[in-house]
Amino acid sequence: MTAADLVTIDGSIFVGAERRHHGPTFRAVNPATGASIGPDVSEADAGDVADACALAAAAAEPFGTLPPESRARFIEASAEAILAIGNGLVETAMAETGLPRGRLDGERMRTVNQLRMFAAEVRAGHWLDATIDPALPERAPPRPDIRRMNVPVGPVAVFGASNFPLAFSVAGGDTASAFAAGCPVVVKGHPAHPGTGELVARAIRAAVATRGLPAGVFSFLPGRSNDLGAALVADPQINAVGFTGSRRGGLALVEIARHRAEPIPVYAEMSSINPVVLLPGALAARAEALGPAFAASLTLGAGQFCTNPGVVIAVDGPDLDRFIVAAEQALAGAEPAVMLTAGILESYDRGVAELDRHGSVRRIASGKPGERRLCSAALFETTADRFLADRALGEEVFGAAAIIVRCRDANDLVQVVTALEGQLTATLHMDGADHGFAAKLLPLLRGRAGRVLANGWPTGVEVTAAMVHGGPFPATSDPRSTSVGTLAMMRFVRPVSYQDIPDPLLPPALQEGNPWRIPRRIEGTWERPA
Amino acid sequence: MTAADLVTIDGSIFVGAERRHHGPTFRAVNPATGASIGPDVSEADAGDVADACALAAAAAEPFGTLPPESRARFIEASAEAILAIGNGLVETAMAETGLPRGRLDGERMRTVNQLRMFAAEVRAGHWLDATIDPALPERAPPRPDIRRMNVPVGPVAVFGASNFPLAFSVAGGDTASAFAAGCPVVVKGHPAHPGTGELVARAIRAAVATRGLPAGVFSFLPGRSNDLGAALVADPQINAVGFTGSRRGGLALVEIARHRAEPIPVYAEMSSINPVVLLPGALAARAEALGPAFAASLTLGAGQFCTNPGVVIAVDGPDLDRFIVAAEQALAGAEPAVMLTAGILESYDRGVAELDRHGSVRRIASGKPGERRLCSAALFETTADRFLADRALGEEVFGAAAIIVRCRDANDLVQVVTALEGQLTATLHMDGADHGFAAKLLPLLRGRAGRVLANGWPTGVEVTAAMVHGGPFPATSDPRSTSVGTLAMMRFVRPVSYQDIPDPLLPPALQEGNPWRIPRRIEGTWERPA
Repeated sequence: MTAADLVTIDGSIFVGAERRHHGPTFRAVNPATGASIGPDVSEADAGDVADACALAAAAAEPFGTLPPESRARFIEASAEAILAIGNGLVETAMAETGLPRGRLDGERMRTVNQLRMFAAEVRAGHWLDATIDPALPERAPPRPDIRRMNVPVGPVAVFGASNFPLAFSVAGGDTASAFAAGCPVVVKGHPAHPGTGELVARAIRAAVATRGLPAGVFSFLPGRSNDLGAALVADPQINAVGFTGSRRGGLALVEIARHRAEPIPVYAEMSSINPVVLLPGALAARAEALGPAFAASLTLGAGQFCTNPGVVIAVDGPDLDRFIVAAEQALAGAEPAVMLTAGILESYDRGVAELDRHGSVRRIASGKPGERRLCSAALFETTADRFLADRALGEEVFGAAAIIVRCRDANDLVQVVTALEGQLTATLHMDGADHGFAAKLLPLLRGRAGRVLANGWPTGVEVTAAMVHGGPFPATSDPRSTSVGTLAMMRFVRPVSYQDIPDPLLPPALQEGNPWRIPRRIEGTWERPA
Repeated sequence: MTAADLVTIDGSIFVGAERRHHGPTFRAVNPATGASIGPDVSEADAGDVADACALAAAAAEPFGTLPPESRARFIEASAEAILAIGNGLVETAMAETGLPRGRLDGERMRTVNQLRMFAAEVRAGHWLDATIDPALPERAPPRPDIRRMNVPVGPVAVFGASNFPLAFSVAGGDTASAFAAGCPVVVKGHPAHPGTGELVARAIRAAVATRGLPAGVFSFLPGRSNDLGAALVADPQINAVGFTGSRRGGLALVEIARHRAEPIPVYAEMSSINPVVLLPGALAARAEALGPAFAASLTLGAGQFCTNPGVVIAVDGPDLDRFIVAAEQALAGAEPAVMLTAGILESYDRGVAELDRHGSVRRIASGKPGERRLCSAALFETTADRFLADRALGEEVFGAAAIIVRCRDANDLVQVVTALEGQLTATLHMDGADHGFAAKLLPLLRGRAGRVLANGWPTGVEVTAAMVHGGPFPATSDPRSTSVGTLAMMRFVRPVSYQDIPDPLLPPALQEGNPWRIPRRIEGTWERPA
């Protein structure tokens, strides 16, 4: 492997170290121009899936039992290799996604720092949850020696998202957290950014080679067909699935996973309208500032964030009117934008047109009109009664469209919040005077969302230990998990107990001498080596 | 409520504090005699389910936000109330289940100690996983303040098992762990021990009242029909399900849970044959001792343990023959035994008869023959080839039946182990000389089981922090969990992040002053209050 290998895009499938090219092929499309770009990309087929999964299964034991330091170094090497691709990575992603340079520069660093964060988390060793209850030979009956730790589940299938071609794609949060947990990864490459995907795949492949790991630790299977994804989830060697995308797509994978001989968990991050509640005190104090801030969050990245604020809920009155006027004015200046793919733009336009035709909502503001291939923002309003009467109004329109729900009073507002489906985020804008009402709403919002925030906007997801990017159905298929932050790696482990296993045969994490020097809970007390 | 309330059995349904009686009714049966015993027991219906779940939902917030000390005291009060029932509890259970006094005395203490263990775990506070990443206002862009903790999922439905009328039933591990997590519980009472169930339900109900908690924290719905269980799992207020029982029953609940508007997790502990591998050194050294020890584990409690050893795998030869002779002799002295219900006995007899008719296995030993209502142990043998050729031979026969698989050589043995379905336990008997082979088998067994043990027998599950009573499908429906030990409570929580929430509005676990004095991970470092 040479430096040139790292910056080549030739439409490869990577089955472990092996590069494959075969028909059929497809090409990337620049969504700003509609032009095909890049080379012919080979579409992976069922044979590639089977081979990649078999290699992954063979790599599972050696990779899954690496000492934390070795696995951390591999993850860091992946981060370094992504940086080593250089500027071509961002330029390829710009051409394939229509996202601007600043955003992609930031996303590249987020991706790299996320990998480094997981490397640090692997080293820290908390994730092993090593727990030891020593034998009590004097007890009647004698208690055996019991030791528990988390072990990797085995090969994981990752489906990248179109809207984060770096941070939620080939080396994104799902891959990084699966590697951290000790699981080989087979990526189904997103067809909207195949060149970007291939570059990142080459970087991980280089890190696998540099660190001397089994080639099956990582494979990259680009393709457009649903059959490819279905074959991957159905492969008996796959033990868990990470997915970010549409509700329809996520639920289809959940169904396939359920019907396997051995069902497996699918962690699908799917659909969220991210309610924003404007409480009376906040509206009275700063309606004119909240309006443009909302418009900015709504239109950020053409509204293509999972955490885009799609519904604003407030008690009706002059303060809400002031907010709406301010939001309208801000939106009127919002430039039309390129969306990620022609298909996403078409869905967005269709969703907005349905709202325009819907008898229960009224369009109240729009972004600057866009030409062909561009979207423009759309803001609607309705009443609480109407919103409650039609659940379709609570469904996500992916893009810069939102609905303001005018509530008669606080009770009305509580009803709307109570009726919401599961969400990634729920936001409260409040002043000191609102704390009483907020205290009543917070338990409801906590019950409906993975993250509750105050006086901010839901777009922007910090990658930290405390982050939850998840939430009740249909925000995700598994509300016990997050797809962002260090907790994400816990999706890919399961606990195992060892009883009376002779010390030399125990995994190092559980051996009496604690050779990995990790924190362990012994007879109820956490012990941390100096 | 009086002391008499605690020891009365009158066939009540408990919807929160409310006692209900209505038709249809059923009666308990003494499996040793076939006689009906106890009062007419009201069968809960769809109306009782809806009312109990609505009460549970109303109790979820006050119960779920109790300080750890308050919740721990309630759990301890439940344990005390169970002890206060006195000897009538064990005698009722003996009559309803056919289990002997010594076993039920032990099971009562296990149930009580399990509750106390969860109370201690609630107090210790690790389960909250409180994680704080403070704001970084100087960073560009500024990082918000993000705080994460585990919150209870809300009302939980618990389906008790017939084989542990105390430790896996009304106040068993599922109920105890759900309470510990802060979830109200609605128990579907097992129809095989309704009187035992009612006594324990009365104890919990007394503890709810004594501690001044909302009545909806606990309801008890006895009944025989599958419709009752189905209505409970389908109720929109239920957020998770704990179940121990048959594979058919568990999978039926999984299906119902999947088809809800909001799918919920079902933690079903279902089916396991608990392979025991006898390695050559161990067989050579102590075949004559292993035989009777195996027979004792196989016949313990009429073989009615989830962890009953149903398959023994070893390399063929004179040492295995010595083991078999010793096991045969021990089994020949095994007394016939009462099983839990007539239905379980019928299933057992049918399963044994199918093996007797099966062309690929041969009966090699039997317990003393039993009269009507009694089961007798049955031991079969087959070869690795035949075992591998028919997956039905790897299915559980609930009771004291097992198959010995004769392998030609070590490779044969590895193939048999590799082909096993998911298991609760996997056991290795080994000597020093076997360590090399054991080191090869351990990763395979770890991949197939929730608990791997050496030189012991799988029956007997310690209730400790390090225990995993779980395992890959079909042992359970969710291999990420355990139904025994403190880790069981993690099934009933989910993580939530709070971002920039004003300190007084945060849950106490995340407030700056740490009023609950729990361990917290702050900017990556665990801090434990003195």
